[in-house]
Order: sequence, then structure tokens, then C-alpha cells
Amino acid sequence: MTITLYHCLSARSFRPLWALEELGLRYELKLLPFPPRAHHKPFFEQNPLGTVPLLVDGATRISESAASCQYLAARHDPGGLDVSPGEPDYGAYLNYLHFGEATLTFPQTLVLRYRFFEPPERRQPQVADDYAKWFLARLRTLEPRLAEQEHLCAGRFSAADISVGYALLLAQHLGMAEQFTPMVAAYWQRLQARPAYQRAQALQFEAAAAQGVPLIAAPDLRP
Amino acid sequence: MTITLYHCLSARSFRPLWALEELGLRYELKLLPFPPRAHHKPFFEQNPLGTVPLLVDGATRISESAASCQYLAARHDPGGLDVSPGEPDYGAYLNYLHFGEATLTFPQTLVLRYRFFEPPERRQPQVADDYAKWFLARLRTLEPRLAEQEHLCAGRFSAADISVGYALLLAQHLGMAEQFTPMVAAYWQRLQARPAYQRAQALQFEAAAAQGVPLIAAPDLRP
Repeated sequence: MTITLYHCLSARSFRPLWALEELGLRYELKLLPFPPRAHHKPFFEQNPLGTVPLLVDGATRISESAASCQYLAARHDPGGLDVSPGEPDYGAYLNYLHFGEATLTFPQTLVLRYRFFEPPERRQPQVADDYAKWFLARLRTLEPRLAEQEHLCAGRFSAADISVGYALLLAQHLGMAEQFTPMVAAYWQRLQARPAYQRAQALQFEAAAAQGVPLIAAPDLRP
Repeated sequence: MTITLYHCLSARSFRPLWALEELGLRYELKLLPFPPRAHHKPFFEQNPLGTVPLLVDGATRISESAASCQYLAARHDPGGLDVSPGEPDYGAYLNYLHFGEATLTFPQTLVLRYRFFEPPERRQPQVADDYAKWFLARLRTLEPRLAEQEHLCAGRFSAADISVGYALLLAQHLGMAEQFTPMVAAYWQRLQARPAYQRAQALQFEAAAAQGVPLIAAPDLRP
């Protein structure tokens, strides 16, 4: 049984792609043009939300990117990429898995939507600015923790780092990386230095080139 | 060692309050005026984000509400309120835990902010409408699943139902419950009929009355 990942370039589905590379699992990568709900209608049959990721593993179908990382980690690497309920940092692990998406990524999608993707007459600079500020304020709360440790929890790289790491990648695409505080910037450098991160990046652009999938037109969402 | 929950009336912190009641655990409930970042500044010393929930259990401090439910469930009721990695529905469980917050609750906070909480000159009816529509479209994807089963996964009530259930409670407060599709409306009735849900509701209003915490001024965020 093969794991299949439906993915769009640099979208949230980069999280499970990175996790799959960290775990060294075999999988099939299906790259779709972004957004699939507009450019690849048959995908609605696979995922009624029309969003990526969709991770398919037998009867399991996961559309939430942070959940897909925890799922892969718990099934394939308990006590490694996954933090187990018996470990002291289990609560911190769950917290950062959610924090990376609900607190650090969703606000950035408002910047993306109302600063770049909407047609000019529907853009909302005030809303984009509100949520850029909101994101950066919440990101700063990582500073004391990252001053003390290399990774977010459990003294090792875990799926929680993938969840938060993707939020940093998106912020970089949106031109906000220069506003990272020093410890966050150093952490982001460490994450980008990981071989699995680099493989995931290379793979998605190779797949795009091979399949002729157009790159996203928003600024800096290109390689 | 006592569990402490910092909570605001009907805020996301209702999720761990509900979970604590489902589990029958002992805990201390600290009710704060909303939003605490404006009305209870000392709370920043407890949670630098200034947000609720904050769930404290020994050295564990959790600020993400869906994570706090999974944490409590996994530590206190594995195979019950929690779905374990070995169960077939483990992936669905994680998916709905995240879906309830990142996909169903965050969009509603935009409705709350730009329709009700911002001063009139900063309100954004277009954005509030965009995300009300966004929320209802994603909510509809639950319809086929709820046509087949009483709860979201694993054939039983789990923390995933608390995560999604809170999104339905918030939607009701925002006046969107009349737009629930039939299976979602019936599911919401089932959730509200649970004794632990009803205890959590009664407890939060008793605590507010006892402590003289003002109720939120937004429409329908009162009992």
C-alpha cells in the first residue's frame, strides 16, 4: 500500500512532504496547480474541500497539514519525530503542532489573500496589515524558548518543528523574514539546513518542471 | 498537583473546560474578563500571548485549545476520549482535532472581529462576509460523514467532537446556526445534550456571576 500526497508548490502540503522525507518513507507525490479548486476540478472527487494537502494512506485521508505530520510521525517514528504521551514535553509538542498552523499560518493566509491574490478592487490593505502584525507578535513569543534550546520540544527535532517551520517558510515568501527576531532567525537557518528539508524543496520543483505545473504568480512564491 | 484552566466566557477555552468535565477531573477554573490582554494585564506573566486558554498541569502549559483537549484525553483516557495511534480512525481523529480549530474556528474570528469587535470605522463587512461563507462551505463537508455516524470518528465521542463542537457553538453565537445543514444541525443537538457539555456551560456562568466578570457585549455571546 502506497502513501499518496497531493501537493501544491510551497503550500501547506509542504509540511507532510517534509515529514515524509524526514521519515524516509516511500510515497507518490501528486503535484497540482494552485489553487486546485480553480485549476484542477477533478480533485474535488478526492477531497471535497478542494484544498491541499490530501494525504492518503489506505483508508486514512487527512486534509489538515499539521495533523498529517503528527499522523506520519506517530505511525512511523514514535519517540522520534513523534513525541509520545508519556514524555514530559508531550503537551508542548501538541501545543506547537497546533500553534504552527492555527496561530502562525492562518493569519498569513489573510496577508496572502488581501495583499496579493484578490483582484485590486477587493484588496484590503488594513486587514493584511492587521494580520501581518498579529503574526509577528505571536511569533516573538518563541524567542525565550529558542534562546534555550535548538528545537521546540523534547530536546530533538520533531513534527512540531515542521509545523512551525512551514509558517516561517511562508513568512519568508511573504517578505516578512527580515522581521524575525534573532533567535527565530537562527532557528529558521537550522531548519533550512536539514537534508530532508532540502530534499523536499528540490523534489517539489523537479516535479513541477516535469509535469509542467505553473509556478505561483505571487511575489517570491517562486524558487 | 492541580490542573488550572484560565478561561473567558464562551471563548475557545470552553474546549478544555468541556474536556475536563467529560473526563471528571479535578481542576481550578480561573475566569478572566475578555479579552484578558486588555482587561487583565497580569495574565501576560502567565501567558505571554495574552490569550485563553491557558491550561497548566505541572510543568506543562498549553495555549492551543484543541491541543489541550488531545493532551487531557491522551493522558487521562487513552482509547476513550482519546483515539490511539493503533486505531484505524487515528488519522481521522487528528484531522478533525485540527479541522475544528484551523479550518472551522479561525475564519469565524474574522467575522467576530470585523463585524462586531472593531470600532465602526475599522469594520470590514466584505471580509466578515468572505469568511462567514468560507466557514459554511467547509462545514458542509461534514454532511456525508454525519449522515453515516453519530460522532466524527472511531464510533464514539472523542476530543475531536469537542474541537468541532466548539466551532458550532461559536457559529451559534454569531447567528449562523440557522445555516447549518440537516446532519450538522442534528449532530450539534446531540453534542449539546451531553451532561458534561451542560455542566461546563453552567459552571462558566456560575463562575462569572460569583466573580463579577462582565459578560461579553457582542450579540449573543451572553447566556
